[in-house]
Amino acid sequence: MDERLRKLAGIFRPRGVAIVGGSAVPGKIGTVLMKNFIDGHFVGGLYAVNPKYTSVLGRPCYPKVSDIPKPVDCVIIATPAETVPDIVEDCGRKGVKGVIVLSGGFEEVNRNDLADALKRTSDKYKMAIIGPNCLGAFDPYTRVDSIFLPMFKLKRPGPGNIAFVTQSGAVGSTVIDLAAHYGMGISKFISYGNGTVLNECDMLEFLEKDKETEVIIMYLEGVKDGRRLLERMKRVNRTKPIIAMKAGKYGKAMQAARSHTGNIAGNYTAYKAAFRQAKVTEAGDLQELFDFVKIFDQPLPKGNRVGVITNGGGMGVLTADAINEEGMEIADFSAESREAFRKILPPYGNVGNPLDLVADAGVEAYDRAIEAMMADPNVDSLAIVVLTQTPPIDERIIGVLTKASDDRRKPVVTISVGGEYTEAYQKALEGKGVPSYNSPNSAIRALRKLTDYAAWKGAKRGPS
Amino acid sequence: MDERLRKLAGIFRPRGVAIVGGSAVPGKIGTVLMKNFIDGHFVGGLYAVNPKYTSVLGRPCYPKVSDIPKPVDCVIIATPAETVPDIVEDCGRKGVKGVIVLSGGFEEVNRNDLADALKRTSDKYKMAIIGPNCLGAFDPYTRVDSIFLPMFKLKRPGPGNIAFVTQSGAVGSTVIDLAAHYGMGISKFISYGNGTVLNECDMLEFLEKDKETEVIIMYLEGVKDGRRLLERMKRVNRTKPIIAMKAGKYGKAMQAARSHTGNIAGNYTAYKAAFRQAKVTEAGDLQELFDFVKIFDQPLPKGNRVGVITNGGGMGVLTADAINEEGMEIADFSAESREAFRKILPPYGNVGNPLDLVADAGVEAYDRAIEAMMADPNVDSLAIVVLTQTPPIDERIIGVLTKASDDRRKPVVTISVGGEYTEAYQKALEGKGVPSYNSPNSAIRALRKLTDYAAWKGAKRGPS
Repeated sequence: MDERLRKLAGIFRPRGVAIVGGSAVPGKIGTVLMKNFIDGHFVGGLYAVNPKYTSVLGRPCYPKVSDIPKPVDCVIIATPAETVPDIVEDCGRKGVKGVIVLSGGFEEVNRNDLADALKRTSDKYKMAIIGPNCLGAFDPYTRVDSIFLPMFKLKRPGPGNIAFVTQSGAVGSTVIDLAAHYGMGISKFISYGNGTVLNECDMLEFLEKDKETEVIIMYLEGVKDGRRLLERMKRVNRTKPIIAMKAGKYGKAMQAARSHTGNIAGNYTAYKAAFRQAKVTEAGDLQELFDFVKIFDQPLPKGNRVGVITNGGGMGVLTADAINEEGMEIADFSAESREAFRKILPPYGNVGNPLDLVADAGVEAYDRAIEAMMADPNVDSLAIVVLTQTPPIDERIIGVLTKASDDRRKPVVTISVGGEYTEAYQKALEGKGVPSYNSPNSAIRALRKLTDYAAWKGAKRGPS
Repeated sequence: MDERLRKLAGIFRPRGVAIVGGSAVPGKIGTVLMKNFIDGHFVGGLYAVNPKYTSVLGRPCYPKVSDIPKPVDCVIIATPAETVPDIVEDCGRKGVKGVIVLSGGFEEVNRNDLADALKRTSDKYKMAIIGPNCLGAFDPYTRVDSIFLPMFKLKRPGPGNIAFVTQSGAVGSTVIDLAAHYGMGISKFISYGNGTVLNECDMLEFLEKDKETEVIIMYLEGVKDGRRLLERMKRVNRTKPIIAMKAGKYGKAMQAARSHTGNIAGNYTAYKAAFRQAKVTEAGDLQELFDFVKIFDQPLPKGNRVGVITNGGGMGVLTADAINEEGMEIADFSAESREAFRKILPPYGNVGNPLDLVADAGVEAYDRAIEAMMADPNVDSLAIVVLTQTPPIDERIIGVLTKASDDRRKPVVTISVGGEYTEAYQKALEGKGVPSYNSPNSAIRALRKLTDYAAWKGAKRGPS
């Protein structure tokens, strides 16, 4: 498998890419794929493979992959299942490093014969294959992009350090879309579908060595080899935190997962136990997946004591509730901090945790309160609530929160709730890598997960 | 108290409104309040009360409320706490029906003397008082609006049938902002702060008789009279479903709630028990509050069997998981439905629940699948997943989903996950009253709450 994993890298940094069925006819998948590379300004060679044309959208077109006179490291196939084995064989002959098979119609509809053909060809040429029955791969650094959904409907995220590995194309695509929406950067997106040749274990091994990747999200329906996955997760999670989500947990949902990618979903209890054993962070649903991934860029806290800053009393109360509910602790501020807070607060203000700066608080008050909590040895992490709707809060708050998030002495979560105006702030924060949440509970739950991970890694205090 | 509750209605439908401290100086609360009424096109009389001017923003200005020669039913006060008792006494002399005291500085800072003065004056004149230490009232029908946050930062929702009663102004304002953002209509917003004269019980009684209100949201920190609240909730919840959220649940969060509005937060276990006894729907956090309120406009289901439609297999699996996790049941479709589905699906499609229409599905397929499930006696409610990113889905899906939501045979939730493009769809849906969620779990949890409420009401099958 090692050679294939090395070649998998070729899919993401190809000298040349060939689109089988590449076309200029509007609405065709082959057209969307060609445009993905052209509009994404892919810098390598781009070729269409289609017996009907000699040129497609200004790029050379050949009858077969093996007819292309230049190096081709990545081939994308979206033709009917029956045609795929011959095309893949032709790719092998050409010396292609990796193939992405988007087409469905394999194990998931009991065509194991076609799946076996792919395996045999991959064995013969030691060729990497992603799929079939998938969305394939997206790399924002090189702009390899086999997601056959138009960019106006599905935005692509920019470069970052989060890798996303998913069995389901549909779920994968929504995550990509949301990541782009929130301004979150990714390193690689891999939708591997049936996982006929390369499965979740292989992807983990690949990402372990991938330079751009620092955090890994895994969305699993079924797995081929649970024992191997557990081992890989244990190892990789030490250096690159893994956030995993299992779908198809029970009864009929398991059946649905089976008919979806032809993998047996397996007993959820076993997955849960495996996640726990590997100390992988489990996300219960898509919302949690997003909430958790935002925070793993933050430094690891040395304990569970949270300092809360707010400009709205009620939101402070809710955040304190969330801290209790998530089993975190409300920090007791040091004498130095209390002294500092007294200077910030109006005469009638209460020095307590949550620290309620009251609605009159301006950006300056936040800055000073944050600095005191960063220096306070009794505080392990900061939860900063900002009601952007109050008159004294203006866009300078983004600078103050970004500074807090970049400080790296302690992890920071920010919480704002509101409509359009608030959302604009939150997008700006996310774009600057500041974890931003629209409910105290999601923020504190994420902080709890980071704290658990830190405790497991036995992280020492200080910049990570 | 009855006379005061009758007079409370006067705050929301006043012949005249007086703003004490009404001003034209930018940045002043008295200016924001005047503008709220002017920009909101309030049709009654509007007066400023300010010894400095004879006219403010084109409206007449008087030294005292009792100097106003025309009827004044509602007075809004935002002057320092010490000045409030005399002003309220003057309002009583003038025969004002209700006063909104926005100012803080009463029980929450141990100035019970000032609070007692308000009580005495209210007793003397049988005058309704909202506050102090609150955001007051907003009525989108009459445009009474004492929310002293500028409209560009905090949007106001349009008319609807959901009343929102909150102790906390900050939390209240974020909910208002979100409601406007989602296109959700409200009947009344009441932030009652310390609840010195009129408290949560009074507001419930008032809303019970309010014609525009059909669903009530209550956000509580502490309450004055738990026994009375329980009784009122029990009674009102029968005709107008109540969704309640308790903040300040534990230890330090309770303390924070105490210093926030001067009410003792009380034992959360007692609240939880009371909610359960009154069969009030409890929201665990702000997110749930929103998720739950969206659904209570839907008809009540006769049971817990959910039919799922999707155009993405993975999202179907997640929805099936959510159904299991929330203790709902995945419906077994009738023979008639199965037959109908076979005609909609492509040849390789699976007839199952979730019904996966696959990514090729167009709007028409949804329409037919929905119609079959509406007619199927084995289905109690519908969860419709739409991945808007697939090529065949266009804006006609909004019409199909609105039709399903307006059908009223069974409750409907819709689920879409994605970025900007998807959000535009969701806003359009919410604007048409279609419950729309961005995660299967939140949608199914809401459906579960509606199903529980229906079971308690012993609702019979059919249109509600």
